[in-house]
Amino acid sequence: MKCTIGVDIGGTDVKIGKFYGDQLNKKMIIKTNKENKGSNILQDVFKAIDKIVGLDQLEGVGFAIPGPVVKGHILGSENLGWERFDVESEIRMHFKNIDIYVLNDANAATVGEMAYGGGKKFKNFVFVTLGTGVGGGVFINGRLVEGVSGSAGEIGHLKVNTGNIRRCKCGLYDCLEQYSSATGVVITANELRIGRNTKLNEIDITCERVFDLAKAGDEVALEVVDEMVHKLSLGLSIVSSVINPEAFVIGGGVSKSGEFLIEKLRKKFYTYAFYSIENTDFVLAQLGNEAGIYGANYAVRNKII
Amino acid sequence: MKCTIGVDIGGTDVKIGKFYGDQLNKKMIIKTNKENKGSNILQDVFKAIDKIVGLDQLEGVGFAIPGPVVKGHILGSENLGWERFDVESEIRMHFKNIDIYVLNDANAATVGEMAYGGGKKFKNFVFVTLGTGVGGGVFINGRLVEGVSGSAGEIGHLKVNTGNIRRCKCGLYDCLEQYSSATGVVITANELRIGRNTKLNEIDITCERVFDLAKAGDEVALEVVDEMVHKLSLGLSIVSSVINPEAFVIGGGVSKSGEFLIEKLRKKFYTYAFYSIENTDFVLAQLGNEAGIYGANYAVRNKII
Repeated sequence: MKCTIGVDIGGTDVKIGKFYGDQLNKKMIIKTNKENKGSNILQDVFKAIDKIVGLDQLEGVGFAIPGPVVKGHILGSENLGWERFDVESEIRMHFKNIDIYVLNDANAATVGEMAYGGGKKFKNFVFVTLGTGVGGGVFINGRLVEGVSGSAGEIGHLKVNTGNIRRCKCGLYDCLEQYSSATGVVITANELRIGRNTKLNEIDITCERVFDLAKAGDEVALEVVDEMVHKLSLGLSIVSSVINPEAFVIGGGVSKSGEFLIEKLRKKFYTYAFYSIENTDFVLAQLGNEAGIYGANYAVRNKII
Repeated sequence: MKCTIGVDIGGTDVKIGKFYGDQLNKKMIIKTNKENKGSNILQDVFKAIDKIVGLDQLEGVGFAIPGPVVKGHILGSENLGWERFDVESEIRMHFKNIDIYVLNDANAATVGEMAYGGGKKFKNFVFVTLGTGVGGGVFINGRLVEGVSGSAGEIGHLKVNTGNIRRCKCGLYDCLEQYSSATGVVITANELRIGRNTKLNEIDITCERVFDLAKAGDEVALEVVDEMVHKLSLGLSIVSSVINPEAFVIGGGVSKSGEFLIEKLRKKFYTYAFYSIENTDFVLAQLGNEAGIYGANYAVRNKII
């Protein structure tokens, strides 16, 4: 029986999944070698794949990579140190006669959630990943939207404030991810805790701990969460004014706070949304950090575009 | 030979076009009667249609209406005084055995521009109409995006400022249309002209005159235009971070300022756009105020959804 491979290349490690059809059969994780502008990463991945499957058994490989992708080319990846190059052709040099599909990592996770996770019942949804940054993917009329320069779903960079308050690593100011990512939550906690009576002053602050304290009723921690939700609601109301999706599927590390977050988000969203925006669902993603390999596998098996 | 009809119901008048295939054969305009919550509008339209075409010759009627539309129902229309009701069924009572298609007016204009106008060469574009307000329509992967509650393309209500500065008629603050519509331009002109040496102090200010003075080199008028472009660029960069379309097709009365506006917009857009957003085209709409009847006709002839 032939298999396919889904690869999810991240800034810290690379996840490799071997699939029979939709079933994950084996998972492997290797370190991402960012030396020399990440020039060894693909070779490392090829070697790892060759170890777990013979070429004669392999039907296709899907690659999820962190950066904008257009027709197999990456336009650049800060996380990997990559500049613009033709990723698909380099993969083709190693895997000559099999199917290859290269897509953005957030888009791969979107496809994974669409096929197997929180997005399964929707034809129009936006996947939102709340982690170190904020990313997303857009699925409309049953198809992934990649964008003319691979930049659809970059919702972490919606402007949710004016006045140049928090500078973003993208070079501009007041992007959503400066407020509603795990990183943003820590920044806000460090601002709001000063001079206040809060357990936030007794711990090493992480996003997870802020949410735990908020759930336990710490007032300042609750304010921090509310500010995170406030900016996220504003961002998602903007997305709704553009494409008015059926649902937002919320994933990434911060989404582990579960229904506590979803409930607040659903409520606040409608205070910002245009009056005719109705019936918008908020659901949790289901595949965790395996969404990327599931999506990359699905993409290559189904030639989604 | 059988014909189809495209109807575009506006707050002031109703445009009715009789088409043979794609060809506009006859155009008629009637007043919009907004008395009694607009309850006579549809009957007036039916009478007008009956005058220009016999039922035995009529294959279909497309209706463009100003408000969110979901499956033939309008969710409400401030411009017409309509509350939520099933428009398609009411039309069906008059036109029993022909095709009927009901869609939002900005979406109809989007379809018109897609089929016959500025959007013809794009599979992914956003139509932007700059008139009394700011509206829009979204066309992705060759299909119109209407949204789960008919609210896709409501880009006039993207938030482009914070601090609750200009209140919008939607009830919220700092929506794009408060800055980049003809109305918004007049508000800005009245703010910036005070105490300044500018021809704006010698005229009855209209958006068109502001643009004319700006083209003639009046510095304050140029500032007014720059502020309009600044907010519009911010709004369109937000749209691009969500769906990264190939192009923005710019229509509505304000777009009569032509390349003068397009050039400024193209330039400013890239100062706000996420770094990987490239190859975004800005083009002028081509159908003027006939876009709605062309689009409504196309929609019913091609059963676009």
